[in-house]
Parts: sequence; structure tokens; C-alpha cells
Amino acid sequence: MEIMKKYCYGPCLLISISINILLSINLFVGKISERPALSWSVKAAAEAEMVAAMSCSGHGRAFLDGPIYEGEPICECYGCYGGLDCSEFNPGCAVDADSGDPIFMEPFWMQNAANSAVVISGWHRMSYRYSDNTVMSTELEKYIRKLHALVGNAITEGRYLVFGVGSAQLLNAAVYALSSQNSSSPSNVVASVPYFSLYQDQTVLLNSKNFQFEGDSTLWKLNNSTNNMDVIEFVTSPNNPDGELKEPIIGGKTIYDHAYLWPHFTPITGPSDHDFMIFTLSKLTGHAGVRFGWAVIKDKDVYDKVMNYIHLFDFGVSKDTQLRVLKLLKVVVESDGKPFFDFSYNMMKDRWDRLTPVFSKSTRFSIQQRHPMQCNFLNETRLASPAYIWVKCQREEEDDCGVVLNAGNVIGRSGSSFGAKDRYVRLSLIKSQDEFELLLQRLTELVSLENRSVYTV
Amino acid sequence: MEIMKKYCYGPCLLISISINILLSINLFVGKISERPALSWSVKAAAEAEMVAAMSCSGHGRAFLDGPIYEGEPICECYGCYGGLDCSEFNPGCAVDADSGDPIFMEPFWMQNAANSAVVISGWHRMSYRYSDNTVMSTELEKYIRKLHALVGNAITEGRYLVFGVGSAQLLNAAVYALSSQNSSSPSNVVASVPYFSLYQDQTVLLNSKNFQFEGDSTLWKLNNSTNNMDVIEFVTSPNNPDGELKEPIIGGKTIYDHAYLWPHFTPITGPSDHDFMIFTLSKLTGHAGVRFGWAVIKDKDVYDKVMNYIHLFDFGVSKDTQLRVLKLLKVVVESDGKPFFDFSYNMMKDRWDRLTPVFSKSTRFSIQQRHPMQCNFLNETRLASPAYIWVKCQREEEDDCGVVLNAGNVIGRSGSSFGAKDRYVRLSLIKSQDEFELLLQRLTELVSLENRSVYTV
Repeated sequence: MEIMKKYCYGPCLLISISINILLSINLFVGKISERPALSWSVKAAAEAEMVAAMSCSGHGRAFLDGPIYEGEPICECYGCYGGLDCSEFNPGCAVDADSGDPIFMEPFWMQNAANSAVVISGWHRMSYRYSDNTVMSTELEKYIRKLHALVGNAITEGRYLVFGVGSAQLLNAAVYALSSQNSSSPSNVVASVPYFSLYQDQTVLLNSKNFQFEGDSTLWKLNNSTNNMDVIEFVTSPNNPDGELKEPIIGGKTIYDHAYLWPHFTPITGPSDHDFMIFTLSKLTGHAGVRFGWAVIKDKDVYDKVMNYIHLFDFGVSKDTQLRVLKLLKVVVESDGKPFFDFSYNMMKDRWDRLTPVFSKSTRFSIQQRHPMQCNFLNETRLASPAYIWVKCQREEEDDCGVVLNAGNVIGRSGSSFGAKDRYVRLSLIKSQDEFELLLQRLTELVSLENRSVYTV
Repeated sequence: MEIMKKYCYGPCLLISISINILLSINLFVGKISERPALSWSVKAAAEAEMVAAMSCSGHGRAFLDGPIYEGEPICECYGCYGGLDCSEFNPGCAVDADSGDPIFMEPFWMQNAANSAVVISGWHRMSYRYSDNTVMSTELEKYIRKLHALVGNAITEGRYLVFGVGSAQLLNAAVYALSSQNSSSPSNVVASVPYFSLYQDQTVLLNSKNFQFEGDSTLWKLNNSTNNMDVIEFVTSPNNPDGELKEPIIGGKTIYDHAYLWPHFTPITGPSDHDFMIFTLSKLTGHAGVRFGWAVIKDKDVYDKVMNYIHLFDFGVSKDTQLRVLKLLKVVVESDGKPFFDFSYNMMKDRWDRLTPVFSKSTRFSIQQRHPMQCNFLNETRLASPAYIWVKCQREEEDDCGVVLNAGNVIGRSGSSFGAKDRYVRLSLIKSQDEFELLLQRLTELVSLENRSVYTV
């Protein structure tokens, strides 16, 4: 004290008081920035941020429920990358463009982490039902209607909405609801080639007395008089696999599968306004792992039948899933959808812009034509940018195009999966950027070999 | 400064330095307790904690996706409570004991908030599949097997596991997988009365050529020779509605519905070891709103058929749901399941202990008998404590027991919903504490009126 008195009268005190003030400000500002103080959610939040912080060399990501190695979650790598940190590229690896896994949207959600995260408490919605006695969240329904109004791709005013476990479940619920209830004359289910395989596979598996799969719409129309026949037609528009905007061939009872009716894949020329329309989160936000789809239904009786089907077979979509979808759609509609659809459209446009020149050099492979159309949502005339390229092998002897592509280390889905010829193959353009880059490279190699006329299968 | 020098040499400096030290400690300790620093998850965590903090007078709770009133989420009240803060009791309100909504477990999860919360990032598992190419989380599968081994209620070693959207979906997948693939001789689906209505409703709705519902097992056996008939029997054990441990009547292809085979509802006498067993999260943890069930399957061919069914109809359970279930089951198996099953068993035991004396005073109403059995899990001889009481109206003229109970302001589910007579009614004992208290009070009133012989319907 005596020493202090001697050497540090005013200056020491001033410095000390200044430190006091600085520390107090730090404490105060710190408290404010952390407000509101968190308690029970901190542990789960810290766990989630810990796995999210794993970089996986930019070629993969870690998940909370992933495999554990030495007590820690490990990286899960994109196709053709490996190693504990996904840094090892396997140059001879075949690129898998078979699946419609929409990983192309992953970067958007990583960039919008704060707004798209959701914290689910242990006691969140334990009941079978919401407080209005339904199995569907009213808040979520509101956002789905808002989204369609914003994008202008479907009329939902005065229509019923039903949520399903992915659109897959709704496809069959739709067939059931529209089918004949008279066993002696089952409804005929048709779709025009090339069509999504699930329409056929579901119907065949159930082997119902009320409906049966009858294949291609056009062929069916040729061979049958529609006057007294009960037909349910699937119209997939834009079509999976080829992206075409389809119209019914038969007319009458029609299920519109609009999975791909979003600005990233097709110009939005006007709102769809049909009796039964089906959408899926998977091809909108890229969340295929979230099993969520919805149907927009005009007729009360049909709606009641679909709801009955849902009540009996799974009692609706998990409440946690509905909460997560609500959170995601809130991000989608932010700023009138501009940030979201700008990202998704530019991603698809870029992929098509880079792929098109490759195929324009080829006489061996052709892909679907794209024509410019007015997009009311983007307010410009533009080309479609479908989720898949529908490749045709042009050489007469190459009637199994899958084999030709496999030889070039490219895996696609063969035409016969879509009721078409194997001269066609579907290649997915919606996987991760790594997988797209590799696909582009492999296709470029295939075409360049063709031009040097040295490539044989 | 001169004033400072004059009046506050040492003491002021000492005080100031002390304050510095205290502030520094606060800052340091504060930082430690908040480690790791959170970033993108804070917003979602704060939202979740905000609704969780709403007390709703102890007679309800608020949810993140609930209805909004003046920009804030509002309370959702338990039965017979109302008002913005659920403080208003409606004394004339009928108590609803119809549904099997397992809200009795809600307090446990509120007490275990930190360990049961889950944070789901916007990019969590966007793919259709896990990294091992399946649609089921391997980590979750591990915990389900661990749980069965711990409780001793089912053999899972060397068996296949399949996850379903609730057990509801798996019931039908099971019927499909076990059914005749020969349309000319469909499999006969039976269950012994009283049975859970979904077995009948699902089968009737699909109207398949491969299987048909044939009602009561015992009656079917009486009327048919089983030698050359293809039969699929549902055995619900413990049974819904009456809690009985059931055995097959026919033998042969059997689906064991073990939804209620947990220590809270029944003594665990030994592990179930059958070809096809179905469980559900709903009646284990109380999360009916989480649509999650699982099947334990012995035969590879049957397993393949069930997986094919799942792949075609909804491509499995949402990845967010699987993550949440994993988190919940981690809590269930903590300390060898003691905290969890102590809570759940004591809750059910308490309800039965309080209800039994009410009915023992009655000659008008009887309920199911309970016999003591050894529970290997609790290591004691105990009575079953089923999820439902199965009430019988004993007076000959009272052949619609639902009407009798309704007159006493009690709503149950009539016997005919279970293929039984309406002289029986199922009353749920697994709803919220508020609803149980009211049920107890109403039943006490009904019985006391009976004893005063003044009550008529």
C-alpha cells in the first residue's frame, strides 16, 4: 500500500477505473448479444454446431446421427470422394447420376443456417392431433398456399390441402380416392410413356380389385373406347424423366403430378388449376430426406377419401417434420421468394449452360429439345432447365444406352424404368456440385472420344 | 484528480482493483459456462425456449407452430380447460377418454428437456438415403436393439428391423408381405375379438385380390378347416382394448402387435420371440405425434417384401423424425432405463390404484381382471396396468354402455369399434393428468349415484 501510494497515485487509479469501465461494458454488451439467455436448448445446439463445423474438405458433411468413429461423428463424403476428411478423390470411380437426390440445394441451406434451423423440444406435439383436431398444421397450410400464390404455379383458393409422407404416398391415395368402388369393373390406371415408375409399381403391388395398371395412355386410347371405361390418368408436368410439359391424353379423371413445377426447372407460364394436383418438398427445397408432399384437391368427396386413406395407413405426417417444413417454407417465401428461387434457378441454369455445348458436339448422343417460354415468376422469356437430361443413343447398334454410358464411367437410369426403350437413359442434374462436375467431365470425355472416332464399347 | 488524490489514495485504488478482479472472474467464468459459443442455432433455440417458458397455468402448453394471436403463439389447453392462459375450467364439460393419446408421458420429457431436445440444421440429411444407402439410421437401429435387450421384451439378435411411419403403416406392410401372391386364393386376415379396428379397416379399404378380412379368429376356426386355408392372424399382446396377454388361435402366419409390451403397461415375463413383431414409439415414450414404429422380422424374404412396400409407398421415415427418435431413445436407456420406466410405471400404477376402488364399489360397471405376474424388468411380482380400462355395463337393459357413460359426461370408445358388443366401452388412462383427474371424478360420481339408487339414464 505504501509503495502504491508512493509510485501510483492518480495514474494507477485512472487506469484501474478505466479497466473497470471496459470490463463492465464487455459484460453488459456480452449479455445483450446473448439475450435471451438459453438454458435447456444449449446442449443440443452445441452438438449440432459441432458437427456443422466439420469441413470435410468441402467434399462431404457430418451429421448428428452419423456413424461414430472413436467417439466422434465422421464425415460422409459426396460421390467419388473418400477418406476420414473426404479429401481423397478416386479418379476411376463411376459417377452416379441415377438418383434424383436433390443435393444441389444444400449450399443454399448452409448459407441460411440461422433462419432454417429448428429446435424441437422433447415434448413437442406428443398428441396424434393438433388443437383443431386435425393431423395437419394450419400454419404450414397457410405457408403452402402463400407459396403457390407467390410463385403463381397453382390455384389453391377454395381447394382442400392434404399432407402426405412424400408425394409417393399421395400418388396411391389419389388412385384409391378416384377409383371405382365396384370390384367388377376396376378403374384403369394409365400414364404416357416415358413415365415415373412408381405409378405402375404401387398399383401392381396392391393388386386391388378396384384399380389396375394399364400402361401407356396413348396406346390405351388406341385400343379402347373411352365411352364406358373407367380411367385414371397420371399427367406428370413437367415430366419425369424428360421435363416436358404434358397434357392428358384421355381426359376425365386425372392426377397431375407437379413435383417439378417450380421456377428452377421450368418457366412458370400460369397457375395450374386442376382437380387433383400433387407437389413435393423434395424437388422444391431439395429435402428428399424429409418425407413431405401435399395434394391440392377440388372435390370434397375425393378429399374425404384421401383423408380416410391417410388416417388408416399412417395417421399423417410426423409433427416434427411438419414443424421443420414450416421453418423451411418461411425461408423460401422471404423477400417474395427472390433469394431462394434466384439461387435454385441459377444453379440449374448454370448446369444446363455448361452441359448443352457438350451434347451439341455429339452425333452419338442427343438430349431433349428446350424451347423458350415466358416465365411469369422470373418475368422473362427463358428455357426450361429440367432436373434430368434424357439422353438418347443415336447409333442403331447402341440400343442399350445405359451400357454405353457405363463404359464411360457414368451411371444413369435406363429407359425401361420409365416404360420406354433402353436406347434412352435419364441422368440426374440435381446432385451435389462435386457430382455434377464429375458428370460433366465424364460426358465431355465420352463426346471427345466419339469425335476422335477411336471409342468403342 | 486533485480531489481523488486528496480523499481516495489507497482505498479507492484497492476497491477499483477488486472490482476489476471480480469483473474479470465473472467474464471468465461466464465464458466457460457458455462454451462452446453458439452462432447459427441461437435464434431457433431462443424461439423454442420462449414458447416453452409459457406456463399456460399448468393446464396446457404452447408450441412453436401453434396458432398465433397478436403476433405471439398461444396456449393450447388440456381437455375441459380454456381461456388464453388455460386457467378457465369448464365444469360441465364431458371428459374425453376415447383417444389413446399418450400425453401421460409429457411431464417426463419436460423434466428431461436438455437431454431430449434436438437441433435440426436446415441441411440435415437432404438425401433420400443414409451413407450406407439404406433409408434407416444405423445408429437408431442400434438403440432399438439395445432397448429391447435392456427391457427383455423381445429378441432382436439375428433379426431384421424395419422402420415405419407409425406402427399403422407396418400393419399393412406385414399383411402384404405374408399374404398369398395368388389372386385365386386370397389370404384370410383374422384377429380375436375384441380387436384393434385398424386391422379390419386397412384390409377392407385396399380390397386386394391377395388378402381379405375375415373377422374373429375363434369364429373363423370354428367355421373352417385350417388344413388348406391361408390365414394371417393378428395377435395383439397386451391386447388393445383390454390389456390381455393374447396367444394365437389359429397358429401359422402370425403378426404380433406388441404396441403395449412395455413395463408401464404389463409385467415383462420374458422376451417375445416371434417371426413378425411390431412396436411403436407412441406407446413407449408417449410420442404419438411422432409417426414412428418398427417391425422385428425373422425371415429374409418377408423382410425384403416389407422393405419393397416401404420403398414404393413412402420411401421410409423422415430423417428428422429418425434423428428425434434417436435422441429420445438415448434418454430412455439412460441408467439402464430406470428413470424412464420408473416414471412411466409409477404413473400407470398410480392411476390404476386410484381407479380400482371406484369400480370395486360398483355392481353396475365391471372392468377387466388383473392377475399378479413376475416382471423380470422390475424384478417384482406385480399387476398389469393397461393403457385402457375395458368397462362392461352389467345391467341387462344397459346394452349400450357408451350411452350410459355419456350421460355421466364421460366419452369412451364403444365395443363395436373392436368387433365386440356395445355393452363394452374402452376408456383411455394415458391422457394428461388433468384429463385423468376429471375422468376419475366423473366415474366416482357415476358409481356413487348408482349406490344411492337414484341415477337413471
